[in-house]
Amino acid sequence: MKLWGGRFDKPSDALMQRYNASIGFDWRLYAADIQGSAAYARALARAGVLTADELAQMLDGLAQVRREFEQEKFEVAPADEDIHTAVERRLHECIGPLAGKLHTGRSRNDQVATDLRLFILDAAGQVEQDLATLQSALVDQAAAHLDLLMPGYTHLQQAQPVLWSHWIMSYFWMLARDVQRLIDWRRRAARSPLGAGALAGTPLPIDRAALATELGLADPCENSIDAVSDRDFVVEFLFCAALIQVHLSRLAEDLILFSSQEFGYVTLDQAYATGSSLMPQKINPDALELARGKTGRLVGHLTGLLTTLKGLPLAYNKDLQEDKEPLFDTLNTLALTLPVLTGVIRTLQVNGARMAAALDTATLATELADYLVGRGVPFRSSHAIAGQAVRLAAEQGGSLRTLPLSALKTLHPAFEEDFRAVLDFKRAVEARRAQGGTATAAVQAQIDQARAWLADPG
Amino acid sequence: MKLWGGRFDKPSDALMQRYNASIGFDWRLYAADIQGSAAYARALARAGVLTADELAQMLDGLAQVRREFEQEKFEVAPADEDIHTAVERRLHECIGPLAGKLHTGRSRNDQVATDLRLFILDAAGQVEQDLATLQSALVDQAAAHLDLLMPGYTHLQQAQPVLWSHWIMSYFWMLARDVQRLIDWRRRAARSPLGAGALAGTPLPIDRAALATELGLADPCENSIDAVSDRDFVVEFLFCAALIQVHLSRLAEDLILFSSQEFGYVTLDQAYATGSSLMPQKINPDALELARGKTGRLVGHLTGLLTTLKGLPLAYNKDLQEDKEPLFDTLNTLALTLPVLTGVIRTLQVNGARMAAALDTATLATELADYLVGRGVPFRSSHAIAGQAVRLAAEQGGSLRTLPLSALKTLHPAFEEDFRAVLDFKRAVEARRAQGGTATAAVQAQIDQARAWLADPG
Amino acid sequence: MKLWGGRFDKPSDALMQRYNASIGFDWRLYAADIQGSAAYARALARAGVLTADELAQMLDGLAQVRREFEQEKFEVAPADEDIHTAVERRLHECIGPLAGKLHTGRSRNDQVATDLRLFILDAAGQVEQDLATLQSALVDQAAAHLDLLMPGYTHLQQAQPVLWSHWIMSYFWMLARDVQRLIDWRRRAARSPLGAGALAGTPLPIDRAALATELGLADPCENSIDAVSDRDFVVEFLFCAALIQVHLSRLAEDLILFSSQEFGYVTLDQAYATGSSLMPQKINPDALELARGKTGRLVGHLTGLLTTLKGLPLAYNKDLQEDKEPLFDTLNTLALTLPVLTGVIRTLQVNGARMAAALDTATLATELADYLVGRGVPFRSSHAIAGQAVRLAAEQGGSLRTLPLSALKTLHPAFEEDFRAVLDFKRAVEARRAQGGTATAAVQAQIDQARAWLADPG
Amino acid sequence: MKLWGGRFDKPSDALMQRYNASIGFDWRLYAADIQGSAAYARALARAGVLTADELAQMLDGLAQVRREFEQEKFEVAPADEDIHTAVERRLHECIGPLAGKLHTGRSRNDQVATDLRLFILDAAGQVEQDLATLQSALVDQAAAHLDLLMPGYTHLQQAQPVLWSHWIMSYFWMLARDVQRLIDWRRRAARSPLGAGALAGTPLPIDRAALATELGLADPCENSIDAVSDRDFVVEFLFCAALIQVHLSRLAEDLILFSSQEFGYVTLDQAYATGSSLMPQKINPDALELARGKTGRLVGHLTGLLTTLKGLPLAYNKDLQEDKEPLFDTLNTLALTLPVLTGVIRTLQVNGARMAAALDTATLATELADYLVGRGVPFRSSHAIAGQAVRLAAEQGGSLRTLPLSALKTLHPAFEEDFRAVLDFKRAVEARRAQGGTATAAVQAQIDQARAWLADPG
Repeated sequence: MKLWGGRFDKPSDALMQRYNASIGFDWRLYAADIQGSAAYARALARAGVLTADELAQMLDGLAQVRREFEQEKFEVAPADEDIHTAVERRLHECIGPLAGKLHTGRSRNDQVATDLRLFILDAAGQVEQDLATLQSALVDQAAAHLDLLMPGYTHLQQAQPVLWSHWIMSYFWMLARDVQRLIDWRRRAARSPLGAGALAGTPLPIDRAALATELGLADPCENSIDAVSDRDFVVEFLFCAALIQVHLSRLAEDLILFSSQEFGYVTLDQAYATGSSLMPQKINPDALELARGKTGRLVGHLTGLLTTLKGLPLAYNKDLQEDKEPLFDTLNTLALTLPVLTGVIRTLQVNGARMAAALDTATLATELADYLVGRGVPFRSSHAIAGQAVRLAAEQGGSLRTLPLSALKTLHPAFEEDFRAVLDFKRAVEARRAQGGTATAAVQAQIDQARAWLADPG
Repeated sequence: MKLWGGRFDKPSDALMQRYNASIGFDWRLYAADIQGSAAYARALARAGVLTADELAQMLDGLAQVRREFEQEKFEVAPADEDIHTAVERRLHECIGPLAGKLHTGRSRNDQVATDLRLFILDAAGQVEQDLATLQSALVDQAAAHLDLLMPGYTHLQQAQPVLWSHWIMSYFWMLARDVQRLIDWRRRAARSPLGAGALAGTPLPIDRAALATELGLADPCENSIDAVSDRDFVVEFLFCAALIQVHLSRLAEDLILFSSQEFGYVTLDQAYATGSSLMPQKINPDALELARGKTGRLVGHLTGLLTTLKGLPLAYNKDLQEDKEPLFDTLNTLALTLPVLTGVIRTLQVNGARMAAALDTATLATELADYLVGRGVPFRSSHAIAGQAVRLAAEQGGSLRTLPLSALKTLHPAFEEDFRAVLDFKRAVEARRAQGGTATAAVQAQIDQARAWLADPG
Repeated sequence: MKLWGGRFDKPSDALMQRYNASIGFDWRLYAADIQGSAAYARALARAGVLTADELAQMLDGLAQVRREFEQEKFEVAPADEDIHTAVERRLHECIGPLAGKLHTGRSRNDQVATDLRLFILDAAGQVEQDLATLQSALVDQAAAHLDLLMPGYTHLQQAQPVLWSHWIMSYFWMLARDVQRLIDWRRRAARSPLGAGALAGTPLPIDRAALATELGLADPCENSIDAVSDRDFVVEFLFCAALIQVHLSRLAEDLILFSSQEFGYVTLDQAYATGSSLMPQKINPDALELARGKTGRLVGHLTGLLTTLKGLPLAYNKDLQEDKEPLFDTLNTLALTLPVLTGVIRTLQVNGARMAAALDTATLATELADYLVGRGVPFRSSHAIAGQAVRLAAEQGGSLRTLPLSALKTLHPAFEEDFRAVLDFKRAVEARRAQGGTATAAVQAQIDQARAWLADPG
Repeated sequence: MKLWGGRFDKPSDALMQRYNASIGFDWRLYAADIQGSAAYARALARAGVLTADELAQMLDGLAQVRREFEQEKFEVAPADEDIHTAVERRLHECIGPLAGKLHTGRSRNDQVATDLRLFILDAAGQVEQDLATLQSALVDQAAAHLDLLMPGYTHLQQAQPVLWSHWIMSYFWMLARDVQRLIDWRRRAARSPLGAGALAGTPLPIDRAALATELGLADPCENSIDAVSDRDFVVEFLFCAALIQVHLSRLAEDLILFSSQEFGYVTLDQAYATGSSLMPQKINPDALELARGKTGRLVGHLTGLLTTLKGLPLAYNKDLQEDKEPLFDTLNTLALTLPVLTGVIRTLQVNGARMAAALDTATLATELADYLVGRGVPFRSSHAIAGQAVRLAAEQGGSLRTLPLSALKTLHPAFEEDFRAVLDFKRAVEARRAQGGTATAAVQAQIDQARAWLADPG
């Protein structure tokens, strides 16, 4: 059964049928499609198109089709070009010609737009949940190791000592923004195109607002032409997903570096690593590399859909069928990446001793500059002097700590013997106790704030 | 004057200086930089780093530098690698060594992140305003021509008759979503990185929340490492901009089609068209083609920054300097595209007669199917019969309207002479009076809703 | 059986196994994998690692595994993480521990790089063939309708009359460049990584050049580190494919416009169109819209892989596993798009009468300017005068042809009554007989050149 | 002076003029424009449109305009919308109305396409030269340090020992492919659109092949419609450039890692590093970070132009004006990145002792496996045993080298005391002497091959 064809003299070319068919991927929409059809049937009954008895039959039929999907008994027929055709065809087999009334005043254009919104809103719920789980793992890691010092980096050069917990909490807040973005997106996406017809609206007396509410959507779309041709809700979701993956790629990069022999700050649990077919010693951070590598995939999906949408005339064009596969693949990618990274974080072995040993005294040069500031030297001058001190120490093959006071005094007379006291990693960390800083108390406050956020995100 | 160098034995390579320098484009941040520095100076005073007198001198100096920029008298020195260096260098020339205290506890890392946020929040205000102006032009066009019928299209084939005003209002709602997206973005972007230092926070007793408020920002960033390495606020803005431009590209495509000789629905005002150097008759819709073509540019900027961010380790890396040029170019593009398109819409000549003449009777086939539905035929069957009727009419070289009743009766006995009454474009349009449909009353309601929205967007 | 694991204390996490596994898509490489292994086995024999008897057994085993794939009898085992593991596991089941020798000195790193090259070189052959078939269809269309005039467009405004055949031949040459690009790419891609080991080369006395030749590849890769981490051959192919699809999107756009009711220049065969579920009259150019829409997909795949590659350290990283799915999907897309468009072109109905009727006399304004040039007026002036003539005609509600000579004489005295002779579409077309122009003879020469090209591309 | 306008009743809107104008960036084409015009003037003379005397005047005039550009005396007038208008306007000022004949039979469409090809072919020559210079620097580095061992990495885990020279040579071959790609591109790009007119060809008896030759181009474009709407030569160049930058980003990433405190393998010359405004000790690898970060920019330009081209109808559309800025910015980026990286490589300090010290004995596990292979154990088994040996050594807190023979014998009886001999980094390196491997002789051969390549690339 085709949903069209009266106008046609001849069948489609066989290759064209394959080119056109979307059932191979849009079967995923079956639950949304049946949910939408049931709601629409009720609206038809309210509009007087279906009798109460016809409505009951139709809902029974739809319920049966849904069960067949859920029990994996549904059989796709060769002519089922998409999930909407497949469901309607099967409904016809179940309840006879009455099925033909379901499409009254409805087009696949408003139907598919509705289905896809219902589907994506549901699917995004899982993403939000997986994000929260990963965030919890990050907070737990931060809370578990609040006493570990490590080098903080800029330009991948050691910059200043920070708490391990401070470092890992920075990822918490990236993901918090990701969740907020999804919350905002959801508000915009939860609109109902149903009743927009092919593009011009419906001639039936349908209460579109009531229909929207029944579908759990906030409001109907304001304009029927926009309703059937709008894919903003997909492309904005793809953006949110791509940015999530970019954040994860940064976390992955950091952990790949930290788990190298040269850094050695963390050891990945072997459950998330793999070996080499040639080199027996290898324990490779594949989970992290995949998380990093898949960023390209999600950026590509976003770019691709934006490119597809560019310059499309109104209203619906078949080009829009290209919205689904990038969406489905994006969801698949997040559905694995987020839990896998949660596992990585939960099982991560943190090597505090390696971190401590790696700390370079030169990361305390800022403390030395601040020391001079405390003795009245403007910061810009004290910065230059501290830089010369680092250079001097390097030339002498030692560190700031081993420089004799006399040498420092040649750089500036304000140096006194007590300068050594500021050359202390822990002290440097604890000095940064303003909100958001790396001092233990500030990080503890951050952890508390994060736990409160998890209890009530947004 | 360089902000660093004590540690260095030798100067930069000349080409390297050019490669590294950002003053060529980041001078745009001067106002934000000075605003941020003034606020920071006050915070330093509150923290006891500056005396009241020193603060006054510093604020005077900053005000003077700002005036020099505003009066286009500021001269960039060869060693000014970026706007932050330039301002500090000039401040030093104005107020002497005291200038060297301004950087106490502050890093270019938190400084540049703050400046960029202040700048982008300000610039986005203009974008929102330009969007609203274009939206107003669309509503006015819709209100001015509420009586014009045109073919509505799907697949660029005539689908159903719609009101011109309904078509143009569909673009209003796309842009409304764009504004909503910017409103949400603003909430997320309005955070203060100041006080994050290089990455570890500040050792000074600075009230970062008060500092944020003073800068007109909602809250300080929660984590200093994230604060200096986060560019979400840029990349999300680039996404919002790219999607705006995608919407404009669809409007441009429609209007390019409609202004072709073959459609002839609209005539572009010559103020927005250009001619040909060879073909004397040409009046080309260059404004619209540029709006469509520049979509690639904005999609490219978004893709580019996402690519740059991929896999960057924490915290600040120089790669992040690549955030500015795509942002500036995106703002430049919107700053011209939006007003130009507003001009196009405001001056557009709409050719109602051409639209009316173009309407194909076959666009009423759905009405014919609905006619049968009204006589008890299930929609799926009536759809097939109406399709056969269109085919029959085409084979006979006529239209649905010229088909004899006898011919229709061979397709289905329920046809009666009154079938001709439904073959009326205006009737078809007015039938679709449910919310969001193309009937005049529904479109008028839409226009009212739009005007209310403009008065209170969100 | 895993190819690694001796070093590991525990199994992979279950989700991690799914995340890591590539067998779901890389099974496509089975033939290439077995071809590569057979060649490598022979190289091992020549290097003395396998006896003649062992080699024979191994080749038999590999042939058996290949047959199982070809007959669709191969069963993937749960632990087969990729096609290479699967083949080696099955080989082990077939020939016992001897299978364990096949991996001597070989790593999955050089193995997968070799397999992918063999696969892509083979698959690209089909693309080249499909391109040539489409090119043939274009030439045949051009040759079949050499007498049809149509408006040529710039800015989608009628510009000058051209031959339909000239228009369609322009697509031939775009595709010719695509073929040339693939020919160049092939030369670069046909290199053998085999023998590069994991990254450092092989300790076995293997003649890599002979091995390359045996695999039908030109040369071995020059550097073992580059050999295992290079994916240029994939990304360059993705670029070639994306540009092919961009070309097809332009062809599709033109044909979608031309098959609209407003243009009406062509009628798509119904075998390549589809209908509407709501509107009975619709015949939609879905084939063309999909071809246009899928451009986003291929541009996305290219962008995605470039993003994945950015900033990867040497040598192999697991990120590179992300090369395969975009490649496979790109090949799938071209494998349908090219033949479908060939079908569209071969069955296209061209409506010469509609084209002729659409021609606007104003497209002859250039001829009028040239007329003045022939009477000694510099082109820049004659262009201005011809423009004024078009304006005058429009103001008088007529065309260039109906302007009285007196009116033209007010614009320039050089006009004489014979000006009307140049206002002839056919004459304008035939005047452009320089190479590459639209005159019939020039287009015929172009067609001859194209047929010669098809016989010997490059 | 405008090149069009006779047809127009009113001037352009002021904002529209800014939107439309390209003189702000396309002035770069002045030399190409004048070169193209001079050649075209000669062709006009051969076609009898210009007398010998007129030609001489015109060439003089063009030469004068060119001198004004070269001496930076050319003044852009407000109405100069693009470089072509500017040159023609100035020519008119210099030689009077005769200038008006230059555009006879030529359109800006074929003119700009020609200019851009001449420009890009010239500019690409500099890119090729800069690539060769960087390649030379890489070979020289390789040749200078042929005795240094370092850990080779896969998955950023130490894999096997390699020569430093082998590592650096891998980048040579990436760039060699880049050069080859440009050579292939040049062949395709060197076509002449001149004589294609606006889209339909020229009515003048112009020998397009001779004109092409005079411009140093291989052949005229085959089809005039394609000639004016083809931008493949830009987009393919953008791809080549993006892939170059991707390669450079990998080199940059490796060197950033290697110059971290944790690796310490190289020290960047301070001429290519910068400091921190806050942290006095910092020496940051900004040159490398910018090279890595700018990859996003070039990938974005490529993506952007592909997006712009998608779905454009034939022939010229104003969207195509968007080809220039991404091209110019791409050229600017390479013009700095390549020489800066050459400087980085030429001045790089290589710390052989740090590399040697970093080598982990576990990277010799493959040697241990090969040891067993040499004693008849199939590789797959020997791999597992070597893995267990590494695990055992780790558990005992030692290395492979410190494992007692007795321990190894519990894993496999074939181990003998001589196993220690294979646990030698240098031995492992020298064992890989097959073509392309890391043995000194193989790397020396590679260096020789590279020098030969530089003398005769392709």
